[in-house]
Amino acid sequence: MVLLYEYEIKIKVENLEKIRKKLQEMNANFLGVIEELDIYFQHPCRDFRRTDEALRVRIYNNKLELTYKGPKISDKIKAREEINIELRHEDLQKIVELLEKLGFKKFLKVKKRREVYRIGGFEVNLDSIEDLGDFIEVELKSACKDEKEASNMLTNFVEKLGLEPKSILKSYLELLIERLRN
Amino acid sequence: MVLLYEYEIKIKVENLEKIRKKLQEMNANFLGVIEELDIYFQHPCRDFRRTDEALRVRIYNNKLELTYKGPKISDKIKAREEINIELRHEDLQKIVELLEKLGFKKFLKVKKRREVYRIGGFEVNLDSIEDLGDFIEVELKSACKDEKEASNMLTNFVEKLGLEPKSILKSYLELLIERLRN
Repeated sequence: MVLLYEYEIKIKVENLEKIRKKLQEMNANFLGVIEELDIYFQHPCRDFRRTDEALRVRIYNNKLELTYKGPKISDKIKAREEINIELRHEDLQKIVELLEKLGFKKFLKVKKRREVYRIGGFEVNLDSIEDLGDFIEVELKSACKDEKEASNMLTNFVEKLGLEPKSILKSYLELLIERLRN
Repeated sequence: MVLLYEYEIKIKVENLEKIRKKLQEMNANFLGVIEELDIYFQHPCRDFRRTDEALRVRIYNNKLELTYKGPKISDKIKAREEINIELRHEDLQKIVELLEKLGFKKFLKVKKRREVYRIGGFEVNLDSIEDLGDFIEVELKSACKDEKEASNMLTNFVEKLGLEPKSILKSYLELLIERLRN
C-alpha cells in the first residue's frame, strides 16, 4: 500500500492582484475559475454545532449536490464521514424548499470564487469569499512522505510569492461562523 | 380554461388471473409492467401522522425519487403539496443512509407490481401489493365533465369484468398502516 499525504497551506491575502501577477510571471498554468455557493442548514431538533455534523447544499458550475458531513473521526487527521448525493442542477429551489418543509433552516451561505493555477508540483487556489475576503490555498500535489520536507517546500513557495507562511487551519465555514459571533 | 377531472375506482381482487384473461378477451392493450418500491420515513422530531405529511423514497424502473408530501389542502379534493426531487438511480443506498444520519427512520415499505392496460377510454392497473394482496384500479382517461356519467361508465366497466363496483378510497400506504395496527 502506498500512502499519499496531502499538504496544504492557507493564507489570508490583502492584495490578490499582486499574487495573480506574480503567478503569471512564474509561468503558472491557469486552469480555470470555479464559482461555488454552499448553503448550510440547521437541523430541526439537533444542534449540529454540538454534534459536529453538517448538512449542505452546494452549487458549483453546472452541478448541484446534497451533502451530509459526520463528526470528525479523529482529532489527528482531517477526516469525516461524507455522504454526497448528486441532484439535477435545476432542482436547487426544490431541494431547499423540501428541506425547509422538513424543518431544516438555512443558517449560513458561503459564496466562493476560486481561480485555480498549477505550477510545478503545486496547485494554487486564489479564493475570494463573500464577507470574508481573499485567500490563497497552496497544495503540494507531488507525493511526499516527509512532513517536514513538505512543509519546507510550501513555506519556500509562498515566500517566493511575497507572503508570510502563517497558515489558517479553520475552514471558511468556521471563519464565517466566528465572524457572525463577533 | 378547460378543467379535466380524474375519475378512478379501486377494488380488492381475489383472482387476478381471471381478470387478466378477461382483459385479453376484450382486446385490451397491454402497456407494460411497473415495479415500484416506496420507502416511507418518520421525522426525527415531528409526528407525520398528526401533521399529515410524508417523506418518501421511490424506486421505479430506472428512476429514484425523493418526495415530500404536505398535508391535504382540502377535504373535498385529493390535493396535496408535493415536492419531487429526481436522484440518480444508483444513489438509493446513499439517500437512505443520509436520511438515517439525519434521524429519519424507515417505517414502512410499499412494494407494488403493476400491470398497465389501456382499453377504450380506460386505463386499467392490475396491482399486486406485498402484504396486502391484489387490486384493480380503473381510471377514466377520456374527458368527462359529469361526475354521475363518469361513475356510471366506471361501474359498467368493472361489472363487465365480473367485479362488484365497491371502491376503496384509502391509499395502499393507509391500508398497510391499518394492517400494522390490527
